[in-house]
Amino acid sequence: MKSEKKYVYFFAANKAEGKAQMKALLGGKGANLAEMCNLGIPVPPGFTISTEVCTAYYKNKKKYPSGLDEEVVSNLNKVEKEMGKKFGDSKDPLLFSVRSGARASMPGMMDTVLNLGLNDKIVDGLAKLTKNPRFAWDSYRRFVQMYGDVVLDLKPVEKDDVDPFEEIIERKKTEKGIELDTDLNTNDLKELVAEFKQAIKTRTGRDFPEDPMEQLWGAIGAVFGSWMNPRAITYRNLNEIPHDWGTAVNVQAMVYGNMGNDSATGVAFTRDPSTGENQFYGEYLVNAQGEDVVAGTRTPQPINKAGRKSKDDVTLESLMPEDYKQLAEIRIKLEKHYKDMQDVEFTIERGKLWMLQTRNGKRTAAAALRIAVEMVDEGMISINEALMRVQPMQLDQLLHPTFDPKAKLDVMTKGLPASPGAATGRVVFNADDAEEWAARGERVILVRIETSPEDIGGMNAAVGILTARGGMTSHAAVVARGMGKCCVAGCKDILVIYSARQFRVGENVIKEGDWISMNGSTGEVIKGQVPTVEPEISGNFGKLMKWTDKVKRLGVRTNADTPNDAKIAREFGAQGIGLCRTEHMFFEEDRIAAVREMIMAEDTIGRKAALTKLLPMQTEDFIGIFEAMDGLPVTIRTLDPPLHEFLPSRIELMEELLDLKLAIKEANSLEKMNELIKEIRKREDLLDKVEKLHELNPMLGTRGCRLGILYPELTEMQAKAIFEAACACKRKGIVAIPEIMVPLITSKEELSHQKAIIKRVARETMDKHVVEIDYMIGTMIELPRAALTAERIAEEADFFSFGTNDLTQTTLGLSRDDSGKFLPMYVEMGIYQAEPFQKLDQEGVGKLIEMAVKDGRKTKKNLKTGICGEHGGEPSSVEFCHKVNLDYVSCSPYRVPIARLAAAQAVLKESLADDQKRDTTA
Amino acid sequence: MKSEKKYVYFFAANKAEGKAQMKALLGGKGANLAEMCNLGIPVPPGFTISTEVCTAYYKNKKKYPSGLDEEVVSNLNKVEKEMGKKFGDSKDPLLFSVRSGARASMPGMMDTVLNLGLNDKIVDGLAKLTKNPRFAWDSYRRFVQMYGDVVLDLKPVEKDDVDPFEEIIERKKTEKGIELDTDLNTNDLKELVAEFKQAIKTRTGRDFPEDPMEQLWGAIGAVFGSWMNPRAITYRNLNEIPHDWGTAVNVQAMVYGNMGNDSATGVAFTRDPSTGENQFYGEYLVNAQGEDVVAGTRTPQPINKAGRKSKDDVTLESLMPEDYKQLAEIRIKLEKHYKDMQDVEFTIERGKLWMLQTRNGKRTAAAALRIAVEMVDEGMISINEALMRVQPMQLDQLLHPTFDPKAKLDVMTKGLPASPGAATGRVVFNADDAEEWAARGERVILVRIETSPEDIGGMNAAVGILTARGGMTSHAAVVARGMGKCCVAGCKDILVIYSARQFRVGENVIKEGDWISMNGSTGEVIKGQVPTVEPEISGNFGKLMKWTDKVKRLGVRTNADTPNDAKIAREFGAQGIGLCRTEHMFFEEDRIAAVREMIMAEDTIGRKAALTKLLPMQTEDFIGIFEAMDGLPVTIRTLDPPLHEFLPSRIELMEELLDLKLAIKEANSLEKMNELIKEIRKREDLLDKVEKLHELNPMLGTRGCRLGILYPELTEMQAKAIFEAACACKRKGIVAIPEIMVPLITSKEELSHQKAIIKRVARETMDKHVVEIDYMIGTMIELPRAALTAERIAEEADFFSFGTNDLTQTTLGLSRDDSGKFLPMYVEMGIYQAEPFQKLDQEGVGKLIEMAVKDGRKTKKNLKTGICGEHGGEPSSVEFCHKVNLDYVSCSPYRVPIARLAAAQAVLKESLADDQKRDTTA
Repeated sequence: MKSEKKYVYFFAANKAEGKAQMKALLGGKGANLAEMCNLGIPVPPGFTISTEVCTAYYKNKKKYPSGLDEEVVSNLNKVEKEMGKKFGDSKDPLLFSVRSGARASMPGMMDTVLNLGLNDKIVDGLAKLTKNPRFAWDSYRRFVQMYGDVVLDLKPVEKDDVDPFEEIIERKKTEKGIELDTDLNTNDLKELVAEFKQAIKTRTGRDFPEDPMEQLWGAIGAVFGSWMNPRAITYRNLNEIPHDWGTAVNVQAMVYGNMGNDSATGVAFTRDPSTGENQFYGEYLVNAQGEDVVAGTRTPQPINKAGRKSKDDVTLESLMPEDYKQLAEIRIKLEKHYKDMQDVEFTIERGKLWMLQTRNGKRTAAAALRIAVEMVDEGMISINEALMRVQPMQLDQLLHPTFDPKAKLDVMTKGLPASPGAATGRVVFNADDAEEWAARGERVILVRIETSPEDIGGMNAAVGILTARGGMTSHAAVVARGMGKCCVAGCKDILVIYSARQFRVGENVIKEGDWISMNGSTGEVIKGQVPTVEPEISGNFGKLMKWTDKVKRLGVRTNADTPNDAKIAREFGAQGIGLCRTEHMFFEEDRIAAVREMIMAEDTIGRKAALTKLLPMQTEDFIGIFEAMDGLPVTIRTLDPPLHEFLPSRIELMEELLDLKLAIKEANSLEKMNELIKEIRKREDLLDKVEKLHELNPMLGTRGCRLGILYPELTEMQAKAIFEAACACKRKGIVAIPEIMVPLITSKEELSHQKAIIKRVARETMDKHVVEIDYMIGTMIELPRAALTAERIAEEADFFSFGTNDLTQTTLGLSRDDSGKFLPMYVEMGIYQAEPFQKLDQEGVGKLIEMAVKDGRKTKKNLKTGICGEHGGEPSSVEFCHKVNLDYVSCSPYRVPIARLAAAQAVLKESLADDQKRDTTA
Repeated sequence: MKSEKKYVYFFAANKAEGKAQMKALLGGKGANLAEMCNLGIPVPPGFTISTEVCTAYYKNKKKYPSGLDEEVVSNLNKVEKEMGKKFGDSKDPLLFSVRSGARASMPGMMDTVLNLGLNDKIVDGLAKLTKNPRFAWDSYRRFVQMYGDVVLDLKPVEKDDVDPFEEIIERKKTEKGIELDTDLNTNDLKELVAEFKQAIKTRTGRDFPEDPMEQLWGAIGAVFGSWMNPRAITYRNLNEIPHDWGTAVNVQAMVYGNMGNDSATGVAFTRDPSTGENQFYGEYLVNAQGEDVVAGTRTPQPINKAGRKSKDDVTLESLMPEDYKQLAEIRIKLEKHYKDMQDVEFTIERGKLWMLQTRNGKRTAAAALRIAVEMVDEGMISINEALMRVQPMQLDQLLHPTFDPKAKLDVMTKGLPASPGAATGRVVFNADDAEEWAARGERVILVRIETSPEDIGGMNAAVGILTARGGMTSHAAVVARGMGKCCVAGCKDILVIYSARQFRVGENVIKEGDWISMNGSTGEVIKGQVPTVEPEISGNFGKLMKWTDKVKRLGVRTNADTPNDAKIAREFGAQGIGLCRTEHMFFEEDRIAAVREMIMAEDTIGRKAALTKLLPMQTEDFIGIFEAMDGLPVTIRTLDPPLHEFLPSRIELMEELLDLKLAIKEANSLEKMNELIKEIRKREDLLDKVEKLHELNPMLGTRGCRLGILYPELTEMQAKAIFEAACACKRKGIVAIPEIMVPLITSKEELSHQKAIIKRVARETMDKHVVEIDYMIGTMIELPRAALTAERIAEEADFFSFGTNDLTQTTLGLSRDDSGKFLPMYVEMGIYQAEPFQKLDQEGVGKLIEMAVKDGRKTKKNLKTGICGEHGGEPSSVEFCHKVNLDYVSCSPYRVPIARLAAAQAVLKESLADDQKRDTTA
C-alpha cells in the first residue's frame, strides 16, 4: 500500500513539483533547481528526496519510511523519459549525481557522489558512445573512488593517515614513472579501477556493487548518513543550525560537456563581477568538463565579444550562436527573477544547453556598489534592498589604494590586516629615517618591532607601517587606521634586527632601502615593488551613502585627533567627533619637551609652569578641530595614557647607557670623557623617573581620570584650553559644541571630582570672555565597575561613551597588545567565535553595555550614549549598538561609511526580523 | 502659654527624666548620663535639650520652639538646687559645660564649651573660693578662648591660617621669654583674657558677653549650629547618618578635682584592658584636673593595691577609702548593667565622688578574648554575645609575635601592613644572602625594591620582608601572608640602592647588617633591635573558636601550597583547602631547572620531556598535601602565572649583560675573554626567550587556562600528578578529595577543553591503579566575563571559586602591584570607601559575584561556590560572602580563625537585623 505522504519531488524544465519557497522541505539546492525549472530553464532532470525522509530516517532507527522506494523508482523512470536514456543501459547510459542539500548552506560538510550508474559493462558502452575511452574510464575510476570513500567508508581515519585510494594512485604513478594524474592512460585507469575494487574487497569484505540500483540506494544512504558526521554536527553547533532540520538528497541526471566538438562547458556572470557593469560576462571551453575551466590547463574563451581580449579568441556567441542566444535569454530571465547578479554554470551536451547551477554571484566591492545602485535605477530593486546588497566591510576596499589586479605578488608572509589599503615603498627601520627619506621624495615603509608614540612623525611620513609585534589594536594599528594609512601589524614571522638594518622572513633577507609591498586589507607582505591603483569614489558611492541616512537611526561620529582627520571624516559623513584623544597632541615635536618638563616636575608649581607652556598650543589644537566640526558636537577626552608613555622606554635608555659606558672606555680625551659623563647623567636622571613611573601592568595603572585626580592642574589646563578655544570660535562665528569626557571612571566620586574642576574652569573662562558655550560633561564607560554602577554614575554624567577597547580588555582579562599570541588559535578552535577586539563580544561585554544603558537611563531618561572603541566601525558591533539603543557609534574616519551602511542595515534587519515574527505568529 | 511638648530632660542621681533607650531623642551622651543617674550613680546634674529642638530649629529658620527658654530656666534652677550653688553667683559659682550629643557618635565633629558662667567678677570669686587664682584665671582664659572660637566664630578660616588666640598666646610667651603654656603666671593669664576680649571686639565688633545667661544661650546656639558645619555634614555623608536626626545639647554642672587635697580626678577600667583580668584597674591624681592625668606632667597613682608598681605608690584605696569603696561599688553596678567592661572617668570634688562618663572600654585582643569568654563563664552574657565582643581582625594580634609593649620604638617610616607580626633582624638585600646569613644563625630581614618568585628561598629564610614597591597583594605580601611571616610592603619612603648595599629613609642610612625592626600589623619600620614576644594562645581562644562552629553557616578553608601550610591551617580549624597554587611548587630549587627547560623547549616533544621530569616531583607535592588534609577537600588550581615569571627578568639580564660586556674590555687573557663570551651568549639566548615572552600587561596576557590550552601537555601532567597522588594515598588509607580548578576562564568552551583533558587523565590513572577517586572539576570566576556568562559556564563546572584578587583588578581596572601610588589618596579623598584589595568592593565586584552565584545556580541548583581571593580572610568581605550565600571562604592559614569568627558574626548580625526588621514592622 502506498503511503499518502509525498517524499520525492520531481524536477525538469517546466515540470518541477517544488519551488524556491520550499527550502525547508527540499533543501536549498533542491528548491533552487526546482525554481529554475519553473522558469522554463533547461536543467538536467532529477528528483529531490525531502528532508522529512532524513528526519524520519533518524527517528526510526535509520529506516526509510515505507513507500519511499516506489516513489524513487517512479521518479527515476520520469527522468529516463526526460533524458531519453535508461539508467543501467550499457549502450547510452543515464548516469546520476547524488548530492546533499540542507535548508541552510553547509558548504563541504556533507558528501556527494558523481557518475553513479557505471559498472564494468556500462563503462565500455560509454567509451564507445563518446569515442573517448579515457574519459569513460577516468569517470569510472573517479566514481569507484568517490563511492568507496563516501558510501563504503574507505576514508582515512586519522588526519595524518594516507587515503587508501590515493596511495594506490601514487604507487601506480611511481611504477609508471609519471608525475601527473593526467599522464595516466586508459590502461592505467583500467588497472586502477581493478585495484580500487580489490582494496574495497580487502578492507570491507564486500564486493563493489555492480548493480546501478544498489549503487543508488547506497549513495542515498550515505548522504543521509553524512548529516550526522562529526564535522557536520560541529558545523551546525557553531552556526546554530538545528540538528532536526535534516538534509534532502538530490538525484540528478549527469550531463557532459566533453562529448565532442558540439559540446562545451562554462561559467558566466549576469553582470561583470569586477566592475559591476551591466554586461553579460563569462568563459567556456569546447569539449571539456567543468573542472577543466577551473584547472587552467586549457585557456578558456570569452562567451561574447565584450569579453574578447585578443583577436584569436573564439566566442561562444560566434561558435554556437543558438546556444549563446538561449543562454543570453536565460541570463535576463534569471536576473529578473532573482533580482540580483547571478553566477551560473552551464554545459552544452551534443548541442543541447543545460543549466547546472545559478546563485548570487560573488563580486568586488565596486561591483556590488554599482550593481545595487543601478538595479535601483533600473527599477529592479528598492532602495532598502540595495542597502542590504553591499557588505559594509567591502566599502573599505573602495576607500584605500589597491594593488593593480594584474600584478603578480611574491607574498613572503602574512601579518594582521591592521589598517587597509595597499602600499609599496622602500624599507626603513626608524622614524627619523622615515621622515628624512620621505623629505627627499622617497616612498618608505616603516618597519618596527613595535611602534611607540615617538614614532608618530615617521609613521606619518611613511606610506605604510609593518610591525613584528602587537595586535589589531596595538599602537601601530590604531594610529595607522586613524591616519588612513596601510598597516600590517603583529607579523610574527619577521625577525627585525635593528643593528643590522635588516629583517628576515624565512629565507628572505630584506635590507634597508629594499622595496617591499603590503596589503593592509589582507595582511600580506610582498617582496618587491607592486604598482598600486588609487581609489575612485564614483557617484554611486555617494548615492548609497545618502540612502543610508534615510534609513538609519544611529548617529555616526568619528574618532579624530586632528583638524585634518576631522575634515576627512566630515566628508565621509561623520555627524560629529565621538572621541578626540588629547594626548595625541602631546606627542608632537614642539610639545613633547613641555610634556616631559611637566612629568619631571618635582611639585605642583613645576607642573603648573610646564602646563602653562602647553596651554596655548592645546588651545590652538582645539580651535582647529572646532573649526573643522563647526556646528557639530566634539567629544574631547581628558588625558588618558600613563605618563611614562611620554618618556623614552626603560630598555631604550638602558641600551643607550650601555653604549655610552662602553664608549667611555674608549674615550681618548678628557674632554670627550666629560661630555660622555654628562650624557650618562642625563640618561640616568631620565631612567630614574622612568623607573619611578614603571608599572607592571600599565593598562591597569595610573592613567585615565586617575591622572587628573592626582594632578588636578592637568585637567584644569585641558578644560581651560577647551573653553578658551570654544570662546575664540564663537567670536569668529564658529559654533563649538564641546562634550568633555572623563576617562577610566570606576565610581561616581571620581567623575564628581573632575566635573567640579571642569565646571569651575568653564564658568571662569566664559565669564572672562563674556560668552556662553553649550557644553556637556560625560564619562567613558570602559571598566566593568563603571558599567555595574552606571545608575549612580549617571547622576553626574550628561552622557556615556562606551570605550569598548578597554572594556573588552578588562571584561575578558585580555591585553590587546599581548593576546595576539593565542587569540587566532582561540578562534580556530571555536573557543571564541571571533576575536573580541575586532567584533564586539556581545555575550560578555555587550551584556555590560546593555546593563549600563538601562541602568543609566533609570537615573537620566535621556542620557546620551555612544560607543567610541574600535568596534564602532565593525558592522556586527554597529548592529548591536543599534539594538541596545545607543545614540551613536564613533569610529576612525575611513570607517565612517562602513558604520553608516551597517547602521542602516541594522534598521532593515530589525524590520525584516519583525516581519518574520509577524509571519510566524500569524 | 507653655507648649505641651517637652523639650528639656533633667538628670541627676536617681532623678533622671531620660534613659539609655532614648538615644534618638537625647543623643548618645544625654541618654547615657540619664542611665547612670537611673542607676543611682552620682553624676554632676544637668539637663539635655532634645534633638527635636535641633530639628525644629533648622526647620523653622533657626528659631527655637516657643517655651524652650522657660524649660531651660526651670531646669537650670533644678541643677542649682542639686548642687547648692547658683549660676552667676560670684561667691560660690555654678559653672556649666555645654556639649553636643547626637544619636550616632560623631567624634570631634561638633563643638563643646567648658567653664561657662565665668566673667570678670565671678572669676575673682572662684579664685578666692579655690584659693587658687591661677586655676581660676586659667579656667577663665580657656573659657574665653573656647567661647570665642566656638560661639563667636573666631576660627582660622583657611587650613594654614593662624588661630587668632594662639597667635596672642605665642606673642605673650615671646614677650615673657617663656616656652610652655604652664609657665604663664596669673598675671600673664589676666593680660591674655583682656587681650582675647579685645581681639573679639576688634574682629566681631561685639563685646564678650559678661552675662552668664547670655553666655549659655550663645553656647546652645553654637552647638546646634555645629550640626550643620561642613565637617559634620561630610562626616554624616560618609557614614550615612541622616541629616535630619539632629543633635541634642547637654548642659551639665562643672565639677573640679583640683580644689585642694580633698579633691582628685582619675580614670579606671572595670577589668584590666591589656590582659582582660577581672581586676579593677585605674589611675588618679590628687588635686588635679582630668587633663593632668593624660598630660603626663605628674605621675598618676594606682587606684588600688593590685595596680601598685612600687612601694612609694599611694593608692586611692588608702588615701580616700570611702570614695574608693563607692567607686568600687559603682564598678560592679556598671558592669552588671552594661554587661561589658567599662572605661570610666571620675572626679572627687572636695570629698564628693562624681562620675563623669562611662563607656565600653577599649582593650587589647587578648583582653577582649578573655573578657568575652569569662563573662560567659560568669553567666553575664550569652555565647552569641561573646562572639560579637571580639573584633575578628583583633585575633591577628594573637597569632603572631608582637613587640614587647614596654619597648621604645624609633619609627623611621611606615609602609603597608602587608603581613602581620613583629620582626627584628639584620638587613640583607638579596635572597641568597638571606639564606646564607640565616644558615649561620643570623636573624635577617630581607629588603627588596620588590620581590619575585626567585626570592622565595630568601623570604623563607628571613624573619621579615620589607619592600619599597607593591601593594597589599603584591608578590611579597601574598607569599609572606602564606608563610605567616611579617611583611611591610610598598614602603614608598625608602630608597633601596642595591649597588651600595644600603637603603635610605629620610636622614637614616641603613647598611647591610644593620638591625631594624618592623611591625607587619601597623606597617611601621623601626630603627634598631626591638625585643619581641611570642604569641601565647590561651584556652580561651580555643573555646571561642569552638563557639564559632556552632553558629556559622559558611565553611572556612585555607589557601595553602605546602603540607606545612596545610597542617597549620588545619590546626586553626580550616575545613579544607580552597586554593592550592601549583606554581609555587615550580619555583623550588630542584624544579626550576626543569620548568625552564619546558619553557625553552622548541616544540611539544621538548616540553613533554621536561614535564616528565616534573611529574614525579609534583606527584610527591600532592601526596604531602593530601596527607595533611586527609578526609578534607583540596582545591588545586592548574598552572596560572605567565611563564616569564619562571625566567629571570629582562632588566636583570640586561644588567648582567652590561656588566659582562664591560668586563670583556678589561679581560687580560684570551681564556678569560672566551669564558665571558660564553656567558654573554647564554644570557643572550635567555634574553631572547624573555623578549619573546615579554608582555606589556602580563596580568592580562598568556596565563591561566590560556597556558593549558596552548600547551595541553601541561594540564595533562598536572592532572596526572593529582590522580597519581590521590591513588597512592587511597592505597595508604588516606582519603584524598581533589577539586581541580581551572583558572582565568572567560568562556564555557575553555573549561570544556581543559575538563576533557583532566577527565581523560583521571579515568586513565584510576583505571591503571584500579582505584576510584571522588573528584570535582570547577573553575575560578575571576574575570568579569566569567561572572557575566556564569549560567553557561555552570553547565561544565562542578563548582565556582571566586578569585577576587583578579576580579577586583579587572572590574576596577586596577593593577594590585601598581595602584599603591594612588589608592591611599583615593581612600583619603573619600573616592573609595576602602582599598578594594583589602575590603571587597561590594557595589562593583560584589554585584558580579552575586549575579554569578544566582545565574550559576539557575543552571546547577547545588553548584558549590566559594571565594579564594585575599578577601576570604577580611571580616566585612566574609560577611558579604555569607549574605550572597557562598558555601565557603578560603584564606591564608593565619587568617582562618579571623574568617571563622567573622562567619559566625555574619550569622548573628543577620538575625539581629531580622529582629530589628520585625521590631520596625511590628
